[in-house]
Amino acid sequence: MSLPAAISGRLRTILGSRLSETAADRDHHAQSEAFHRSPPPDAVAWPETAEEVAAILSACNDARLPVVAWGTGTSLEGHALPVRGGISLDLSRMDKVLEIRPEDMQASVQPGVTREALNLELRATGLFFPVDPGANASLGGMAATRASGTTAVRYGTMRDNVLGLQVVLADGRIIRTGTRAAKSSAGFDLTALFVGSEGTLGVITELTLRLHGQPEEVAAAVCAFDSLDQAVECVSATIQSGIPMARIEFVDADSARAFNLHSGSSLPEKPHLMIEFHGSPGAVREDAARFGDIAAEFGAQGFDWATTAEDRARLWRMRHGAYHACLALRPGASGLITDVCVPMSHLPAAVHAAAQDIAAEGLVGPILGHVGDGNFHSLLLVDPGNADEIAAAKRVALRMAERALAVGGTISGEHGVGIGKRGLMAAQHGEGWQLMGQIKAALDPHDILNPGKLVPDRN
Amino acid sequence: MSLPAAISGRLRTILGSRLSETAADRDHHAQSEAFHRSPPPDAVAWPETAEEVAAILSACNDARLPVVAWGTGTSLEGHALPVRGGISLDLSRMDKVLEIRPEDMQASVQPGVTREALNLELRATGLFFPVDPGANASLGGMAATRASGTTAVRYGTMRDNVLGLQVVLADGRIIRTGTRAAKSSAGFDLTALFVGSEGTLGVITELTLRLHGQPEEVAAAVCAFDSLDQAVECVSATIQSGIPMARIEFVDADSARAFNLHSGSSLPEKPHLMIEFHGSPGAVREDAARFGDIAAEFGAQGFDWATTAEDRARLWRMRHGAYHACLALRPGASGLITDVCVPMSHLPAAVHAAAQDIAAEGLVGPILGHVGDGNFHSLLLVDPGNADEIAAAKRVALRMAERALAVGGTISGEHGVGIGKRGLMAAQHGEGWQLMGQIKAALDPHDILNPGKLVPDRN
Ligand SMILES: Cc1cc2nc3c(=O)[nH]c(=O)nc-3n(C[C@H](O)[C@H](O)[C@H](O)COP(=O)(O)OP(=O)(O)OC[C@H]3O[C@@H](n4cnc5c(N)ncnc54)[C@H](O)[C@@H]3O)c2cc1C
Ligand SMILES: Cc1cc2nc3c(=O)[nH]c(=O)nc-3n(C[C@H](O)[C@H](O)[C@H](O)COP(=O)(O)OP(=O)(O)OC[C@H]3O[C@@H](n4cnc5c(N)ncnc54)[C@H](O)[C@@H]3O)c2cc1C
Repeated sequence: MSLPAAISGRLRTILGSRLSETAADRDHHAQSEAFHRSPPPDAVAWPETAEEVAAILSACNDARLPVVAWGTGTSLEGHALPVRGGISLDLSRMDKVLEIRPEDMQASVQPGVTREALNLELRATGLFFPVDPGANASLGGMAATRASGTTAVRYGTMRDNVLGLQVVLADGRIIRTGTRAAKSSAGFDLTALFVGSEGTLGVITELTLRLHGQPEEVAAAVCAFDSLDQAVECVSATIQSGIPMARIEFVDADSARAFNLHSGSSLPEKPHLMIEFHGSPGAVREDAARFGDIAAEFGAQGFDWATTAEDRARLWRMRHGAYHACLALRPGASGLITDVCVPMSHLPAAVHAAAQDIAAEGLVGPILGHVGDGNFHSLLLVDPGNADEIAAAKRVALRMAERALAVGGTISGEHGVGIGKRGLMAAQHGEGWQLMGQIKAALDPHDILNPGKLVPDRN
Repeated sequence: MSLPAAISGRLRTILGSRLSETAADRDHHAQSEAFHRSPPPDAVAWPETAEEVAAILSACNDARLPVVAWGTGTSLEGHALPVRGGISLDLSRMDKVLEIRPEDMQASVQPGVTREALNLELRATGLFFPVDPGANASLGGMAATRASGTTAVRYGTMRDNVLGLQVVLADGRIIRTGTRAAKSSAGFDLTALFVGSEGTLGVITELTLRLHGQPEEVAAAVCAFDSLDQAVECVSATIQSGIPMARIEFVDADSARAFNLHSGSSLPEKPHLMIEFHGSPGAVREDAARFGDIAAEFGAQGFDWATTAEDRARLWRMRHGAYHACLALRPGASGLITDVCVPMSHLPAAVHAAAQDIAAEGLVGPILGHVGDGNFHSLLLVDPGNADEIAAAKRVALRMAERALAVGGTISGEHGVGIGKRGLMAAQHGEGWQLMGQIKAALDPHDILNPGKLVPDRN
């Protein structure tokens, strides 16, 4: 489809050359990291200010034209795909760190600032922004997916680290949510409503973020276990003991093999935990020792402490490279990555069942995750031309989600709903899913914001 | 007003003798801790199950009759007053702790369970529920006001400690929000939407709460400062240093005087900080020493460490008794208690300005607060028969709120909006306040849930 003349003119007036209808630009915004496919948008827009976003939304609202926000396109469930065409609203040019307020431990940023760019700017302040999904995602996209990552066990997710937002609503109104105070009881928590709304309720044009002090001392290590069960039960026991872990990551034997091939490491091909402690020197020493005691009970071996900053950077680079390392286990394969989260006591059984299921389907699917939150993923490697394999992988993902629901968990701990998990929303939320639809209808009566996602279809 | 016959019969069928139209019961539910006055409700209902709540709401929705939830009535801005009559829905009979899941560090409770009742049940588990507004409020009411208290600086507020809810909507639908997993990215954060909604969006009939491990070691102390500015600047410096405080409370010289009169303490009549550290023995020692160094820079004196559990209980009982102790400073006086929260760097100036303003108006108004969050209160003591004093106190409260807004803070850190702060919502939220009204209209089209509160009036 191409843009109707009326709206095309209006958008061109707002954006000039920052509106593109070329096939290359449109196709780029129809791609996703994951499995999902979509027709391209009718056009791509690169706004530079909230006012431009407001003018675009207002025009599109009048024309009933869909608008799908685009951060860096790293989301894993097809969130940013323009399944009903319209405008792909690429926020990458809104990439300014607007203000750092070290004394309040806060930063105000535009939505296109990436996590790494922000942390680079923060380096000299002694502060950092902890939420860390591995991918160098945009902070707007991270807020929109309620992202988390390796450090959420200590510092929380985007839910906990976004203090306020500027948001453009479907009709072009610009609002501010939240405050710069640490807490507030003044009215509905609109910030929390927009965080995780996946571009269906508004476009985030500014974020006020909570920063954290760089820890005085950091200690990180990797250790191996003989079995998946022992590794995961060690996590469960550690979390229950209350040791304040800064990171505690599980990777299975397949992942370890992938790291060895990809990162030149020489880990035993066994399940591993990768851990990190933050705090004062005394606390870190104490915490590490207590963790060591617990891990020993579960047969942990070959503790390898990363003592220098470079060693730690290498360790976490390896972990963050897991996606590509695992994909390389099977050249030419596509990855169907799936994410669930369960209450801690159910984690060992949930991981065990997933591993059995993957094996029973005859698939290769490394399991790894931010297990300190009860959150784990499987990266199911499938031949994109093999419909049977794809179907098998989807069955595995579905059963992982169903088992998570059966124990009171969630179909997604951090990746979100997008296209891939929408079919499970009714199962998770029941009548609550209808309520989400009512809220969406109230805020976006013409269903222009990322239509076909997250909420039930309108009737 | 009395109940129309049609609805009266329907409610009587649901509730039997648990529906009361006596003057005594109605008057009891028209009282508030604070200053605000209201006509009594038409009747008081004591439901015992979510299904009963659903039947009541459904009947009242049909009859367009207001329903105002009632927890323990301790809220401070007139939240639970039935300003438009209707039913006062008293949840005190829904007071069961439904399940404690120690291995997941969670509890499921009915809304009428009080904070103290829950902690009593938890005693043997090694776990506790940290949110602590001093008053022995109901957990439903605490969720509805997004309450916090002395420990929020470490453990967060109700926003952070409610994992999920069961809620009855205006039309009688029963929904569940959230999950038992530590985090979720599956859809709108309905839990956060209901937390802090002050009974305007739904009635909470069950809560899933996050519990915390009782700290291995606790150390608490009180120390004095020569000036308010020094005490508050010490807080700001402590928080910025990243020392993990479990509590850090400011009380001014008037409060210290009140404690001495009321609790038999013998504090110097100076500003004080009351502090607490939680953690492993080593960490607590380290943290306390670091705090001591910072406090010394600001001239802290007379450190009094509460070494036994009894001493600590006495210390916090004194702090929690501040409201009544301060009221007793001026026998016969009523308290207008007002609460704001500002970014940490603005705390010293904000407290200083409030104190000056109170003095300039010739009022007695102790200042105290959960200053680790930038949150402080003034308890303005007024003669309830003296219109000038009341007007002066309201001016002080208004200017505290306005100054908080001017530095990016909030008109309420924890007490909420109720009647008292509704006039400031537009100033804080601008167009966002209209959005809250749109959400309310979508969820409660006939405006039966706590009408006249929190959101703009319907046109
Ligand atoms: C290798 C790899 C590892 C990953 N690991 C993790 C992980 O550990 N944890 C985790 O949480 N995620 C992880 N992800 C997923 C992904 O990085 C996150 O979902 C991230 O938050 C997406 O950000 P983005 O900027 O790429 O958003 P996009 O993919 O561009 O968009 C995501 C959604 O947000 C909406 N959106 C984007 N910007 C805005 C805005 N300004 N306003 C409103 N809506 C907006 C879009 O419309 C879309 O619905 C990983 C991805 C990859 C490729
Ligand atoms: C001495 C004293 C000290 C205090 N200190 C603090 C403090 O430090 N921090 C703090 O945050 N607060 C404090 N408060 C205020 C008060 O304790 C809190 O606001 C508390 O959360 C109110 O709970 P409640 O059960 O009394 O609710 P109520 O006063 O009965 O109701 C409060 C609001 O919640 C609604 N509500 C109640 N139950 C439900 C339900 N189940 N579903 C939906 N809506 C419901 C009501 O309609 C009303 O709008 C203090 C109060 C006093 C008297």
